[in-house]
Amino acid sequence: MALALKFLVITIAILALTSSPSTASDPSPLQDFCVAVNDSKATVFVNGKVCKDPKLVTADDFFRPGLNKPGNTSNQLGSIVTAVNVNNLPGLNTLGISLARIDFARRGLNPPHTHPRGTEGLIHFQLNVGKTNAIAFTGLSSQNAGVITIANAVFGSDPPINDNVLSKAFQVDKKVIDDLQEEFWWDNN
Amino acid sequence: MALALKFLVITIAILALTSSPSTASDPSPLQDFCVAVNDSKATVFVNGKVCKDPKLVTADDFFRPGLNKPGNTSNQLGSIVTAVNVNNLPGLNTLGISLARIDFARRGLNPPHTHPRGTEGLIHFQLNVGKTNAIAFTGLSSQNAGVITIANAVFGSDPPINDNVLSKAFQVDKKVIDDLQEEFWWDNN
Amino acid sequence: MALALKFLVITIAILALTSSPSTASDPSPLQDFCVAVNDSKATVFVNGKVCKDPKLVTADDFFRPGLNKPGNTSNQLGSIVTAVNVNNLPGLNTLGISLARIDFARRGLNPPHTHPRGTEGLIHFQLNVGKTNAIAFTGLSSQNAGVITIANAVFGSDPPINDNVLSKAFQVDKKVIDDLQEEFWWDNN
Amino acid sequence: MALALKFLVITIAILALTSSPSTASDPSPLQDFCVAVNDSKATVFVNGKVCKDPKLVTADDFFRPGLNKPGNTSNQLGSIVTAVNVNNLPGLNTLGISLARIDFARRGLNPPHTHPRGTEGLIHFQLNVGKTNAIAFTGLSSQNAGVITIANAVFGSDPPINDNVLSKAFQVDKKVIDDLQEEFWWDNN
Amino acid sequence: MALALKFLVITIAILALTSSPSTASDPSPLQDFCVAVNDSKATVFVNGKVCKDPKLVTADDFFRPGLNKPGNTSNQLGSIVTAVNVNNLPGLNTLGISLARIDFARRGLNPPHTHPRGTEGLIHFQLNVGKTNAIAFTGLSSQNAGVITIANAVFGSDPPINDNVLSKAFQVDKKVIDDLQEEFWWDNN
Amino acid sequence: MALALKFLVITIAILALTSSPSTASDPSPLQDFCVAVNDSKATVFVNGKVCKDPKLVTADDFFRPGLNKPGNTSNQLGSIVTAVNVNNLPGLNTLGISLARIDFARRGLNPPHTHPRGTEGLIHFQLNVGKTNAIAFTGLSSQNAGVITIANAVFGSDPPINDNVLSKAFQVDKKVIDDLQEEFWWDNN
Repeated sequence: MALALKFLVITIAILALTSSPSTASDPSPLQDFCVAVNDSKATVFVNGKVCKDPKLVTADDFFRPGLNKPGNTSNQLGSIVTAVNVNNLPGLNTLGISLARIDFARRGLNPPHTHPRGTEGLIHFQLNVGKTNAIAFTGLSSQNAGVITIANAVFGSDPPINDNVLSKAFQVDKKVIDDLQEEFWWDNN
Repeated sequence: MALALKFLVITIAILALTSSPSTASDPSPLQDFCVAVNDSKATVFVNGKVCKDPKLVTADDFFRPGLNKPGNTSNQLGSIVTAVNVNNLPGLNTLGISLARIDFARRGLNPPHTHPRGTEGLIHFQLNVGKTNAIAFTGLSSQNAGVITIANAVFGSDPPINDNVLSKAFQVDKKVIDDLQEEFWWDNN
Repeated sequence: MALALKFLVITIAILALTSSPSTASDPSPLQDFCVAVNDSKATVFVNGKVCKDPKLVTADDFFRPGLNKPGNTSNQLGSIVTAVNVNNLPGLNTLGISLARIDFARRGLNPPHTHPRGTEGLIHFQLNVGKTNAIAFTGLSSQNAGVITIANAVFGSDPPINDNVLSKAFQVDKKVIDDLQEEFWWDNN
Repeated sequence: MALALKFLVITIAILALTSSPSTASDPSPLQDFCVAVNDSKATVFVNGKVCKDPKLVTADDFFRPGLNKPGNTSNQLGSIVTAVNVNNLPGLNTLGISLARIDFARRGLNPPHTHPRGTEGLIHFQLNVGKTNAIAFTGLSSQNAGVITIANAVFGSDPPINDNVLSKAFQVDKKVIDDLQEEFWWDNN
Repeated sequence: MALALKFLVITIAILALTSSPSTASDPSPLQDFCVAVNDSKATVFVNGKVCKDPKLVTADDFFRPGLNKPGNTSNQLGSIVTAVNVNNLPGLNTLGISLARIDFARRGLNPPHTHPRGTEGLIHFQLNVGKTNAIAFTGLSSQNAGVITIANAVFGSDPPINDNVLSKAFQVDKKVIDDLQEEFWWDNN
Repeated sequence: MALALKFLVITIAILALTSSPSTASDPSPLQDFCVAVNDSKATVFVNGKVCKDPKLVTADDFFRPGLNKPGNTSNQLGSIVTAVNVNNLPGLNTLGISLARIDFARRGLNPPHTHPRGTEGLIHFQLNVGKTNAIAFTGLSSQNAGVITIANAVFGSDPPINDNVLSKAFQVDKKVIDDLQEEFWWDNN
């Protein structure tokens, strides 16, 4: 655990050089709890989630096991994010907060990204600069902060962004853009 | 780490039987960052904190070391809370989020409390039901969620609450109230 | 009326010694009105309340009689709260405000409590220090501010909180806790 | 008191025919209290009010006497509003709520108005339809809800609105507008 | 285009003499998009709008043609407002913003009005003081800011406001009020 | 003007394929107006801006000329953004809204960007697909929505992001990253 914290300290310092955080606040709750109905079972959709009938709520709705299991970092980034938010912990609905565990292999990278509805809304990344694996736990100020991985959103969107646009925006030859768009854009989220 | 997480899982289940969470959301930020000026150096006070001149902000304002050090749990509760909020991490100002590390001895208790401006606004507690020490990391949806330890607020306030009031509220003899008010109310926060 | 106001003035002064107020703000409305459907008739649940079809709204939805009738204070606290909120005045839905009438017998007490979603989120109480009955009218900054009576939440919860927890939190013998948990916890709300 | 309440009931029913309420919510507080510094003593101005140094706050900052005194209704409207808000009760700062006492003579009118930052943001009025004097107590969901008396804002503004504008807006001869603009626009707020 | 902008500049200066702006902020979104279901097709009503099933959302839901067409200003005010808000552009739902095009004939007037949930919540108006037609584009800080045209709300409401009330509020003879109430109150919104 | 609108229609359709909008809402105002003091003259900094003494406010504080002048699009992107926000129109402070004029040459591009505190928080861009110059007017739901141009933030930050990080994130050779980082990153905002 000490290592994970040391890691956090170092990468936050790096982050501060390249960006600064921003946030958005979820609407406040209007009752003691409002356990989310899973979207696949919902017949009505609202801003956020509709709630389970309060009479049917159980302790399990506030419970999510498994965060003690390391994620699999055997991928091109050497990192994996395990998010706990309203989509998999229904009791978080209307509470305005969520969290994530991030596992890093040595030199593992959580690549440049933003959270459109959460803390650190500017572009930021985390890099494991230590000599071993590392773990980070992060809190986010929304029940569903979202994540936009910059490289994937720009070069891996489906349908693709017109390569003339990207060529002009990044000031590189269209051939470079076309190559980038043909990569396999794996997402660690 | 696994233990801490197992611990978390168990105490959250207990919590769900006795209370349910509530929250309040901080106002949204209006600029990329607003590093807090420490209250002891402030000449003007506002809702939240006044900000350091942006031109004088450094990476250190977003940095707080020491969360890797275990807290001292040698006290009557067997637990200690180490909070990271706008009061000791000035870069959190206007970001609507904070966190805490809680260390628990065996059978350690973080006693019944509420957070007037944060997640879990109803009365809740955490008990280490495992066979070893434990650590928990918690996120709170305010830069300064506050904490009200119930027993301390009711019986340890200064000046004290009139004992007739407490005798009637708790339906016990004034002698019991007087004894409670003479205890040493140590606070693990 | 003069008496009720004198009473208010005195108890607010007492309150200021033991606590200070806090609040949370409801989300803003997005239309002129959104009359709540009673939960017992709702087929869908959301943060707050679903609304009646606007075409079926009538003046009665904004009307609640009976606040002129004194409440019955013949109970162990000598007080009774009559709340007007979104649960019994459906037109309040999305308006972020509610109110209550509190009747006090001589020496009547509205015991220590908090409002998880309303003004005065810290622990507070009101005591009739006058020589006659008294009435207070209070406003709350949420359509459903909630109330947690401290003594009842701690000692009267169902299922009960483990007596080891309460014994350690209140620093009294388990026997005292067990006695407290066996009381009849009447709630004036 | 019964009379005041009966009055309230009747006028709310009338109100529902001509308008429906709306509201805005103040930003949430970020500390337990933030007692306002009076504008006349402030050297810095912010959204809301700057706060008194917390170390200098006293119980008196949360205290406002005098609401038990009837207001003087000897005016052309037969009503008078006594407002309690952040401007005269500094402890209300950041709490998102305020209140008013309204005294009515027989047939007294609180004329059509709106509150730009409070409950009942649509145009509304209160008329004493009872056979005696009446009192109303109202809550508003902002520390400084504001009030715009329609007739005064339109015909009594200083400098005046161009009479061509008002003649076209109200579809009456400019002579009627000029007469209206020469009236003495007394405000009961 | 230059003319429209010159127009804007001049009328904003006039506005500043008679009122000052205020606003309310919509609740923040909790997902990337929440396309509104038209009220006429909705079976459930909420604060704002229920959302279309995300799987059925298309690009057309974010598209509204026709704002390039001039509105018909051949009416007694010489102006017409074309609003684009959540009611006719469903993709705006939960985004907290809307807009309007206003066409003005020479001397055209957008008469005194307020927006109960949007920017410029005080009473304001726009007058074309130029020598030609004019166009204005306005942004509003709510998906459904609403508009209350003062003259229509006061004298054209259905059912009508009691003429005794208006006679006292506007300090004119009941005969003047009765005449005003019999006018045809055309609304340019 | 018609052309600008046609342009808007087309690019919004393109945008909908690659992203969807999000937003954050500014805190609500607590008084009728709060004219911002320019940061260069401020002695105290807060979330947002401190306000001018209300007694010194003039109509000019709500006035900003010049939006009728075309911007200079003779740059590598063929576009230029002229923003009107709290930084150059002090009367916008606390109003939660701002606007921008965007001029486009033929094939002009406003490159991929996000607004950390405004509408359209996901990555989006605007391209002039018409056969002539074009103008767009946009509204943003914050007084200071901010803008992060993706290419500039990633490749043009000062100090630069470590090229190992970018090489891994974009899955290209470090040589490509180094070339990108040596470009002149002109910003049209």
